[in-house]
Amino acid sequence: MSGIPYDPDNIFAKILRGDIPCHAVFEDEHTLAFMDVMPQAEGHTLIIPKVPSRNIFDADPTTFMWLMPTVQKIAKAVKKAFHADGVRVIQFNEPAAGQTVFHLHFHVIPVQDGVALKPHAAKLEDGGTLAHNAEMIREALKFIS
Amino acid sequence: MSGIPYDPDNIFAKILRGDIPCHAVFEDEHTLAFMDVMPQAEGHTLIIPKVPSRNIFDADPTTFMWLMPTVQKIAKAVKKAFHADGVRVIQFNEPAAGQTVFHLHFHVIPVQDGVALKPHAAKLEDGGTLAHNAEMIREALKFIS
Repeated sequence: MSGIPYDPDNIFAKILRGDIPCHAVFEDEHTLAFMDVMPQAEGHTLIIPKVPSRNIFDADPTTFMWLMPTVQKIAKAVKKAFHADGVRVIQFNEPAAGQTVFHLHFHVIPVQDGVALKPHAAKLEDGGTLAHNAEMIREALKFIS
Repeated sequence: MSGIPYDPDNIFAKILRGDIPCHAVFEDEHTLAFMDVMPQAEGHTLIIPKVPSRNIFDADPTTFMWLMPTVQKIAKAVKKAFHADGVRVIQFNEPAAGQTVFHLHFHVIPVQDGVALKPHAAKLEDGGTLAHNAEMIREALKFIS
């Protein structure tokens, strides 16, 4: 519907191919979850389908059938890992809406009472912090069904 | 996981029971889509499951299986109806994250290039405008598979 074809050289496609690394927290047959390198809060995680689509406009509806159980799992895990008071689930479609990588993805962002989120896609987090936060989420996932 | 039980007297439960009206744009066996009365942009629509859950923490995973096809349909429809440059899909869990009604729901918000969204849950739109926008979305839905 957007009419723009999928670009197989977008960053998330490269992550899926293993061409560039990520701080993964969960993977199954159809989905991958990993740390956002420009987090809006500690524990900001991205969930992507393995099947290519640009965004919600061109995605096959079955994509969400596989994706949402992982989104829900990660939402529960980041709440537990970071003792979050709430969680935002956000999905941007096209640049006007804030999309910066053109492979369908959901943001899962833990929120603490009274703590404003940092701007979207603004500042690179250091690798050590991302690795540590990924480990906390993987640990929390052990307790999430 | 939030530990807080579902309140059957929340506004969306009342809408589902028909106790209070809404500007509906789509309904099927499992889902209802209607205009947000405090829109962040023209065409801001909410999608809810008919089955009760507070948010992503207590929802049965099958809830999303029914919900997401409607979310996707509405995203395509608002893009078409309002000639939007993009669409934001947002889902808040618990007050810290911005949740104000405690029945699971997705926001679908059309975005225009260079036009900032209005604040969340801030100002009531007049009924005539909501009725007109609902009609535009229902019309656009005729062309969405």
